[in-house]
Amino acid sequence: MLFHVRMDVQLPPAMPAAQADELKKNERELAQGLQRSGKWRHLWRIAGQYANYSVFDVESVDELHTLLTSLPLFPYMKIEVSPMCRHPSSIRDTDT
Amino acid sequence: MLFHVRMDVQLPPAMPAAQADELKKNERELAQGLQRSGKWRHLWRIAGQYANYSVFDVESVDELHTLLTSLPLFPYMKIEVSPMCRHPSSIRDTDT
Amino acid sequence: MLFHVRMDVQLPPAMPAAQADELKKNERELAQGLQRSGKWRHLWRIAGQYANYSVFDVESVDELHTLLTSLPLFPYMKIEVSPMCRHPSSIRDTDT
Amino acid sequence: MLFHVRMDVQLPPAMPAAQADELKKNERELAQGLQRSGKWRHLWRIAGQYANYSVFDVESVDELHTLLTSLPLFPYMKIEVSPMCRHPSSIRDTDT
Amino acid sequence: MLFHVRMDVQLPPAMPAAQADELKKNERELAQGLQRSGKWRHLWRIAGQYANYSVFDVESVDELHTLLTSLPLFPYMKIEVSPMCRHPSSIRDTDT
Amino acid sequence: MLFHVRMDVQLPPAMPAAQADELKKNERELAQGLQRSGKWRHLWRIAGQYANYSVFDVESVDELHTLLTSLPLFPYMKIEVSPMCRHPSSIRDTDT
Amino acid sequence: MLFHVRMDVQLPPAMPAAQADELKKNERELAQGLQRSGKWRHLWRIAGQYANYSVFDVESVDELHTLLTSLPLFPYMKIEVSPMCRHPSSIRDTDT
Amino acid sequence: MLFHVRMDVQLPPAMPAAQADELKKNERELAQGLQRSGKWRHLWRIAGQYANYSVFDVESVDELHTLLTSLPLFPYMKIEVSPMCRHPSSIRDTDT
Amino acid sequence: MLFHVRMDVQLPPAMPAAQADELKKNERELAQGLQRSGKWRHLWRIAGQYANYSVFDVESVDELHTLLTSLPLFPYMKIEVSPMCRHPSSIRDTDT
Amino acid sequence: MLFHVRMDVQLPPAMPAAQADELKKNERELAQGLQRSGKWRHLWRIAGQYANYSVFDVESVDELHTLLTSLPLFPYMKIEVSPMCRHPSSIRDTDT
Repeated sequence: MLFHVRMDVQLPPAMPAAQADELKKNERELAQGLQRSGKWRHLWRIAGQYANYSVFDVESVDELHTLLTSLPLFPYMKIEVSPMCRHPSSIRDTDT
Repeated sequence: MLFHVRMDVQLPPAMPAAQADELKKNERELAQGLQRSGKWRHLWRIAGQYANYSVFDVESVDELHTLLTSLPLFPYMKIEVSPMCRHPSSIRDTDT
Repeated sequence: MLFHVRMDVQLPPAMPAAQADELKKNERELAQGLQRSGKWRHLWRIAGQYANYSVFDVESVDELHTLLTSLPLFPYMKIEVSPMCRHPSSIRDTDT
Repeated sequence: MLFHVRMDVQLPPAMPAAQADELKKNERELAQGLQRSGKWRHLWRIAGQYANYSVFDVESVDELHTLLTSLPLFPYMKIEVSPMCRHPSSIRDTDT
Repeated sequence: MLFHVRMDVQLPPAMPAAQADELKKNERELAQGLQRSGKWRHLWRIAGQYANYSVFDVESVDELHTLLTSLPLFPYMKIEVSPMCRHPSSIRDTDT
Repeated sequence: MLFHVRMDVQLPPAMPAAQADELKKNERELAQGLQRSGKWRHLWRIAGQYANYSVFDVESVDELHTLLTSLPLFPYMKIEVSPMCRHPSSIRDTDT
Repeated sequence: MLFHVRMDVQLPPAMPAAQADELKKNERELAQGLQRSGKWRHLWRIAGQYANYSVFDVESVDELHTLLTSLPLFPYMKIEVSPMCRHPSSIRDTDT
Repeated sequence: MLFHVRMDVQLPPAMPAAQADELKKNERELAQGLQRSGKWRHLWRIAGQYANYSVFDVESVDELHTLLTSLPLFPYMKIEVSPMCRHPSSIRDTDT
Repeated sequence: MLFHVRMDVQLPPAMPAAQADELKKNERELAQGLQRSGKWRHLWRIAGQYANYSVFDVESVDELHTLLTSLPLFPYMKIEVSPMCRHPSSIRDTDT
Repeated sequence: MLFHVRMDVQLPPAMPAAQADELKKNERELAQGLQRSGKWRHLWRIAGQYANYSVFDVESVDELHTLLTSLPLFPYMKIEVSPMCRHPSSIRDTDT
């Protein structure tokens, strides 16, 4: 099942650089593992913003929520989730 | 180059069914041709809405604008375009 | 899987009363069938508005979209869908 | 009487983890007691957010306000309340 | 129980004057009856707008919804309802 | 002259409890004096929020502004003022 | 007493030119009479919009509402009213 | 040339009272000088808010920007500027 | 003096094609004349929308308003005007 | 390819003046270099705001994103990007 997710990151200006770097490094590793597993199907940077558009391919809403809240940057993100389904004009049976 | 596009369709309630069907049939044919060419890279229905999230892969902004305004439903759509680029945490060189 | 849905209905002022009544009668029959099947788990009127809050319990996003777009009033509704999951403080394994 | 409530929690980034844990533990205990009493009829997590949709079943608006303001997380929540009533298409006399 | 209600009226520009006058006359009669009964406790015009702020004193949300939807202008109004309760700094036991 | 006022209070999370209590105690005393004088005609709590709907009955806009800015919580409040007048469907000459 | 008023005019596209001209002519005459009387103290066009910022100097909110609703264009305007008072840094006792 | 300006002031709660007083004193002196020069043509307090509506009469946009950014409170203000011109229904050649 | 202008065009769906074409032809001729005169300094299409970002270089706000309201599409446009001035980091004395 | 960019700067009130000055100095140098290279084609101050409208002329979205995120003030800016293309009524082949 596909979900469209937008994440906007806002780190507190007072966060020490070392802590921010550690957070981002852990975030990247987790994100890359989820991409390799096929759960985090797409990940694009929105130009000019500390934000991304993503597409997740998961078995259930619970699985999606568990993945999102496990992200190290979760406490610093505003997240919007939109469930998606196959478009009747798509040329594919499933557009992942 | 990748662009994230959201399209919301609003047909006038008074439009005759035959005219609406003709518009949608033409829209589908054009959309499927653009998908086959690789320009309209993704097309997903947003659940519960007459709307879609799409990803276009084009050579320039001009090409994107020409494609969008050539859609038969263009006069009845609200369209938002967001330029996207490769995310530093992506595991792919280009995530199309 | 549970989805929170808000539906706001807006019939065109010029719609003949007979047509509106027919639409509402068909909507009610379909809505009641879906409630009996357990798919449309809750249906509440929002006080003072021609709108409702609903909870759907479906197998997939595709099933939800098919149900919503099959409603006779769908062309006249603004619909917002929010995926939900079990709350960690809930006293139930599944709160339907 | 049924009320639809949305709660968005925002803890200050600088709050010590121990204080946050204590708050959440107390919140959970109170929430579970209210669920057992039937006052907090439904409690769902909104996917990807530190937020919930809830349904309360209370005798009066005063009772609802007293319950909500007694929550340990109340000072850190944005709360929206919508009064609801039986929907004419519901198959139940009361849909709690 | 007290509810704060804001009503914004928008009559279609094409509505014949006679029909609008009939609607307003019926609305006024019903509104005055509800005021006399004590259900529609306050009714104020918002300066410069075809809108009002009202306070209703009813037994339940159902009663409020039934009153509001019985208004002849209901199909032409946007209505927002806010449940209210006694303020701890009020000098009265009940401020109706 | 009647003015509809909505006040939303937002105390800084870091404010010491003693300071907050002192502010609220002074606010209450001033609010109750203004209610007794008839200037602060109504004061209702909005359910689930640290906010109120109020109605002031004053001689002039200047008097209203002086009253509002004299409130101890004024620096921590977001205030919206709407001038109101007698509604043509009111059953009273003046609905205070 | 001074009130800041913003008026946005929206005439229906289908209104015959003669009717629009008649409305505007009557509006102008009334507006100029109110300016001469000192009630409509300032009237400025907002650049690029069919809208104005105005300042009214009236005895009461009721008088303001009566003036605004007597305007021929009132049914086609969106109006926002903000009560104003003397600014403590003003160099005038009353800035009309 | 006339410009409509709205200024909303938001001082940080943690600013020492002496610093705030100094800022306000300097702001007042500058504001009064600009009023005497005729540049800051009107200055009104918005009732119930730490905000003002102003009208500036300047030679150019550059001059306006220089004046606004020279205000001691500028770093703590949200400012909106709307260019205005003579209204065709005005009874004055220039309504300053 | 430079003004940033955004124009969004919305033609009524029921407008006959011939009338729309005539309007657009006249609009183009006037727009091109103003560009040649240097008044309409820049004109860009916003991708995917029937809208443009423009920069005007005029002597006064009155001249800007006269130009904008003389456009044949003016009655069908939503227009937002922002006054601009030289940026302190610009490498040009005047960036037209 | 042209992109319309709006940047709103918000420095934390607690940032030491020396740090702010250093940031602004570096920002200016980088901005001027990008203007000289032709990448940052226009840079205008929005009157009364710590904000600018800019036009970038770049080879790709990736290049735009790299430029924007390299700005020293990037962590303190809210940035909105709109892709633009040649307007059919433009008198130039490319309006940079």
